[in-house]
Amino acid sequence: MAEPQYTHVPRYLTGDKAGLHEFLDKFDVFLFDCDGVLWSGDHLFPGTVETLEFLRKNGKQVVFVTNNSTKSRADYCKKLESLGIPSTVEEIFSSSYSSSIYISRILQLPENKRKVFVIGETGIEQELRSENVPFIGGTDPAYRRDITPEDYKRVAAGDESLLDPEVGVVLVGLDFHINYLKQALAFHYVKRGAVFLATNIDSTLPNSGTLFPGAGSMSAPLIMMLGKEPTSLGKPSQAMMDAIEGKFHFDRSRACMVGDRANTDIRFGLDGKLGGTLGVLTGVSSKEDFVSGPVRPHAYLDKLADLLESDS
Amino acid sequence: MAEPQYTHVPRYLTGDKAGLHEFLDKFDVFLFDCDGVLWSGDHLFPGTVETLEFLRKNGKQVVFVTNNSTKSRADYCKKLESLGIPSTVEEIFSSSYSSSIYISRILQLPENKRKVFVIGETGIEQELRSENVPFIGGTDPAYRRDITPEDYKRVAAGDESLLDPEVGVVLVGLDFHINYLKQALAFHYVKRGAVFLATNIDSTLPNSGTLFPGAGSMSAPLIMMLGKEPTSLGKPSQAMMDAIEGKFHFDRSRACMVGDRANTDIRFGLDGKLGGTLGVLTGVSSKEDFVSGPVRPHAYLDKLADLLESDS
Repeated sequence: MAEPQYTHVPRYLTGDKAGLHEFLDKFDVFLFDCDGVLWSGDHLFPGTVETLEFLRKNGKQVVFVTNNSTKSRADYCKKLESLGIPSTVEEIFSSSYSSSIYISRILQLPENKRKVFVIGETGIEQELRSENVPFIGGTDPAYRRDITPEDYKRVAAGDESLLDPEVGVVLVGLDFHINYLKQALAFHYVKRGAVFLATNIDSTLPNSGTLFPGAGSMSAPLIMMLGKEPTSLGKPSQAMMDAIEGKFHFDRSRACMVGDRANTDIRFGLDGKLGGTLGVLTGVSSKEDFVSGPVRPHAYLDKLADLLESDS
Repeated sequence: MAEPQYTHVPRYLTGDKAGLHEFLDKFDVFLFDCDGVLWSGDHLFPGTVETLEFLRKNGKQVVFVTNNSTKSRADYCKKLESLGIPSTVEEIFSSSYSSSIYISRILQLPENKRKVFVIGETGIEQELRSENVPFIGGTDPAYRRDITPEDYKRVAAGDESLLDPEVGVVLVGLDFHINYLKQALAFHYVKRGAVFLATNIDSTLPNSGTLFPGAGSMSAPLIMMLGKEPTSLGKPSQAMMDAIEGKFHFDRSRACMVGDRANTDIRFGLDGKLGGTLGVLTGVSSKEDFVSGPVRPHAYLDKLADLLESDS
């Protein structure tokens, strides 16, 4: 199947008061990517709080959609609140939650293959627990160690104390404690038949105004070793959009996706046939990406707070 | 440029005494891949010592060519000796050595950009030292730690105590202590202009009769993040073949590459226009790979020791 073409001419709305009014009137729901749009790392962008308040005041529903799997919805809610952004857990949709729902409600796993081997942090673990999905790996200190000569033999022999026979899924998210042992075990679980899932496939993660390895960098070695791609449960995978729609029951033609990455956020909205997509230049993609790249938003702004200009 | 086609019909020589005689008579030099051919992990295959002795007795030159960058030539020599295989450092050609030669003798680095940031083990460090190439990273315990919130800011600010301004090369080999911090630093060095090199790009490493992550799995996240491939100094890169020829001055038409991997060992010999390539079925590639894959050896054996049948 050919990739869809998204090469329309995006409208530049910063400073265009009439254009902003017209754009905002088209939508009832705004799906927000967070990192790179509302903040970067721990730095809240000026005007974020006011912009969200302005949208809510005008009757718009706000949903925070994040590929960051290291946090649970509850963690994210706390993060939003610590930055002064009022929110509820119900407004938050993370790739860790999306993955947990997919495993518990969509995957049909045999009774004796229901365990998940996790590469990732506590956010994934919390959301798996909230769906009663058993798991191993993750933040367990037992996996935060060097591989030993004995491990090679145990893996080769299929030692059940190292390779749990009940593991039927490998879920790979961003793991700040990634190591050789975890990669080796994940590889062997998938080779033995486990379903290969990724919370998301962003190669990088914005922090402090620059980029660091993202969840996609955790799957990359496995993809190379296995010669196969994981099913991704984060943007731009439509599995995530379906889950959001299932929960919020919105009219896609009256919804707008706001994001900083053309190939994840904007593609997510375009593939999902949302009424609108809005790019902001405070994250990964550049003006050139939005204006002449292969995936272009309907409109773009220098920064999210430029939406407030419609209110002046 | 189109990939060359290597789809001739390989000759199966196990049990074919006349065929073996004919094959052996064509060559003066045998280049041996080691892991998967002579041994697997720490398990020496039966008949390896006798086969090498038989070849030497018949006037053949033997060269051990290995992509395993974790060991230096001296380490490899010790490994061969501990397994009862007599050898000299001069007979050994490792990807760590090949990389060091490439950096010291071929790359033209500016005076203030001569340092190498190493992802890898002691083998690389030893070979860099033997060529007087300054380096950081590698086995230095300072890099075997978790990333901290402070590190993100230091990287973003280009803090010279974390991102050494003299680094002009990132060399990625197999690192059993790979972690998030090393990946983040390697990414930033290349983004700042460092030459991106890999000792080799094997996705997996045979051990104990099964597979574990290889050096290619260390480059995979960087390739994904950077959107560019490293220059590889291991098989099947012809940079390695040129270095071997420069050292041993052999007639390529009278040389045969012996290996277990079609896409590295056998391709290495075929791309290098050696007179022969010989596959063995004791490692990664299967009979099907050799007989009907895209890269096929001139001949293949069940196991290396089957060469001895020509002596009976």
